[in-house]
Amino acid sequence: MEIEIKKKVLNANDSKAEENRQRFSKDKIIAVNMMASPGAGKTTLILSMLEELKNLKINGKKSQYSTAVIEGDLASSIDTDKIKKFGWKAVQINTGGGCHLTAQMITKVYPELKLKGPGIVFIENIGNLVCTAEFDLGEQIRLVVTSVPEGDDKPIKYPAMFQNADIVAINKADTLRHFNFDVKKFEEGVRLINPKVKIFTVSAYTGMGVHELL
Amino acid sequence: MEIEIKKKVLNANDSKAEENRQRFSKDKIIAVNMMASPGAGKTTLILSMLEELKNLKINGKKSQYSTAVIEGDLASSIDTDKIKKFGWKAVQINTGGGCHLTAQMITKVYPELKLKGPGIVFIENIGNLVCTAEFDLGEQIRLVVTSVPEGDDKPIKYPAMFQNADIVAINKADTLRHFNFDVKKFEEGVRLINPKVKIFTVSAYTGMGVHELL
Repeated sequence: MEIEIKKKVLNANDSKAEENRQRFSKDKIIAVNMMASPGAGKTTLILSMLEELKNLKINGKKSQYSTAVIEGDLASSIDTDKIKKFGWKAVQINTGGGCHLTAQMITKVYPELKLKGPGIVFIENIGNLVCTAEFDLGEQIRLVVTSVPEGDDKPIKYPAMFQNADIVAINKADTLRHFNFDVKKFEEGVRLINPKVKIFTVSAYTGMGVHELL
Repeated sequence: MEIEIKKKVLNANDSKAEENRQRFSKDKIIAVNMMASPGAGKTTLILSMLEELKNLKINGKKSQYSTAVIEGDLASSIDTDKIKKFGWKAVQINTGGGCHLTAQMITKVYPELKLKGPGIVFIENIGNLVCTAEFDLGEQIRLVVTSVPEGDDKPIKYPAMFQNADIVAINKADTLRHFNFDVKKFEEGVRLINPKVKIFTVSAYTGMGVHELL
């Protein structure tokens, strides 16, 4: 009974996700679903990528990407305020107690951003290595952010999160010498469950590796 | 309809939790439900507390507490293996995809530990700042572990977790100088939603503050 209900909810989510995907594609927008533990540095990484995108040159010419952020949080608008303070477009979703964003929440707020492609929308999901993995938002890219202080055993302990990732970013790499984090062991753990994933080592704080990640 | 079902599940959990609480009390066992983000250092803190308990003297006499650990993880037995390696009693719960432990899971595994009080059982919940907060396991103490690298804004972003905590431990305090973490701001954030909570600054890695926490 419980499983059946869950299945119905997921299917409703999936059809909304498909709708979002078509809308993004029509608008020439790449949607990036960013998932991580609380405090892994998603917001700082988004700010760092937005800055890098602004200065990006393609064939010697400045790129003209539209950019925006959809911020998911249980409560508060701390992150949206932070992003807007730097002059970027952002919209906040508060889930109340909900541990993940749903496709429907994205459908609702996305038009507010009035994005004109080509461009990128970063969706910062709720800080959670479990629930968020199950809900397709219609994104083209799933970016899982892990951070050095969390330890190198996360892929084995939270396999579903890493299984469906397109890209994994190891953040806070500037603190590697202060923690027992074995990059090779972590990468092997990820590839064991997801051989095709791309892994980047970055520091959103110093900007290291952010260009390569983009 | 969805809310009604959730309520029923919670009530079933609550009655099992009450059953656990009576059993713990009868056995003279203090159960500590430890909740945190993934990688906040719950396992290392448990090991540090077990070591401290072993050496604890009460009125000049060595304490004779029974101790054990119930480990919750989505998958793997990494943490249980780690704890057993140091010679402590431990039992593993794997939730599959479940983002929190339930009272029933505790009812099932607790007898395997064959604990004789007075003693302490540390229950390491799934690494998650959202779902775990909703499920009473029958514990007498709710210990929320946060860590310095996660940032000082967590109480405002994950209020439910901090609202029902008896104790909050700020872990990885040995790395304070490497991160922008304002202890005072964090403490104010917690007390705003939970004025009665006790807050301790610790380092499970160096052992700092663990005696005071216990």
